[in-house]
Amino acid sequence: MKLYIGNKNYSSWSMRSGVLLAAFGIPFEEVKLRFDFSAGSEWSRVIATVTPTLRVPVIVEADGFTVWDTLAITEYIADRHPELPIWPRDAKARARARSLCAEMHAGFSRLRTVCPMNIEAFFPEIGAKLWAEDAALRADVGRMQAAWSDALATSGGPFLFGEFSAADAYFAPVAVRLSRFGLPVSEAAAAYRDALLAHPAVEDWVAEALREQDFVPEDEPYRTGR
Amino acid sequence: MKLYIGNKNYSSWSMRSGVLLAAFGIPFEEVKLRFDFSAGSEWSRVIATVTPTLRVPVIVEADGFTVWDTLAITEYIADRHPELPIWPRDAKARARARSLCAEMHAGFSRLRTVCPMNIEAFFPEIGAKLWAEDAALRADVGRMQAAWSDALATSGGPFLFGEFSAADAYFAPVAVRLSRFGLPVSEAAAAYRDALLAHPAVEDWVAEALREQDFVPEDEPYRTGR
Repeated sequence: MKLYIGNKNYSSWSMRSGVLLAAFGIPFEEVKLRFDFSAGSEWSRVIATVTPTLRVPVIVEADGFTVWDTLAITEYIADRHPELPIWPRDAKARARARSLCAEMHAGFSRLRTVCPMNIEAFFPEIGAKLWAEDAALRADVGRMQAAWSDALATSGGPFLFGEFSAADAYFAPVAVRLSRFGLPVSEAAAAYRDALLAHPAVEDWVAEALREQDFVPEDEPYRTGR
Repeated sequence: MKLYIGNKNYSSWSMRSGVLLAAFGIPFEEVKLRFDFSAGSEWSRVIATVTPTLRVPVIVEADGFTVWDTLAITEYIADRHPELPIWPRDAKARARARSLCAEMHAGFSRLRTVCPMNIEAFFPEIGAKLWAEDAALRADVGRMQAAWSDALATSGGPFLFGEFSAADAYFAPVAVRLSRFGLPVSEAAAAYRDALLAHPAVEDWVAEALREQDFVPEDEPYRTGR
């Protein structure tokens, strides 16, 4: 099984699937396509032959069968590995985990737009300015914090539903955004953010992102170079 | 089990869950909250007591447990009813169905923006104008048509994966949009659109939408009244 991903530094969607597979010890071959959308680049030559959505991440099985979109990938992996607690075992916790992932999938658009993932860069001044001026950003972070607090209070932590699950893989890029932009969060949310960042699968992803030393202008609203 | 929904005429997300439950004969109590976001309206008084996301649809169980977001609702219902083929039984078809639903969930944004669901209204002139001028809309419809054609060619139809499944419930509002805006599609896509519109659960939803005779300005970019 191959997992096609983009730049580890920037691709929050790739991170979700990569961290999920690594956290549960599921073997896969990683294929990185650098975010270079110019004509003739590896991305431009390859992506359409891999997935009709032209997006990463995407799983490609040995027989050519493809599974795209992080949510569908998560369900596919959970289907294939019923022995692993990819979703929480408790039915209500499982439903809530899926609600949170689905909410993340289509929501929190202000947070995603103004605080794009950029693992190697720290923007505390920009984060402070955004926080002061951007009510939609504060609303997104407030809602996320409420959702996290509710799940953590029910489970007792350290992860949203106790043990690390697919929902935590889903929020790993959010932990990066919060830390890189220095956004203020509650004590409970900060503890969860730090638990995410200290998970070995997240630490490995971050370490590999730092080794990329790449610069993709489309993903850099706040820098002109490295 | 209660399913909170918005106006049947406008709420494409409500339609997905409502059609799913009806198509599989799952009993539920429907609670409609009219889209009226003014202070003091029923919506404004009730929605925050039902769901932290302030969005419909949402399931509320007898014990107060809530499940929000159409994708999470679909998985919850599939979990609760393993005896029903809510997702296709074949593992690859199931994975593909989930990929298509997830792609719909976060994608096709141009189609969703410029062709909002409005069951009672027909906009063929606006549809023709959009089609001529809006490359992003044509790209969205083209991608959807390709995804449908691929699934239908594999399954043989009449629904995406043969029998009616959650994926078809997910595309029911798209069938409405295509028909109301008169957007041109291939013969295979048109046949599928029409099969969706002729499904009893879709026909019932449409009939109830037509009885609403309501007008919500926020959902009416193309009319000033009924």
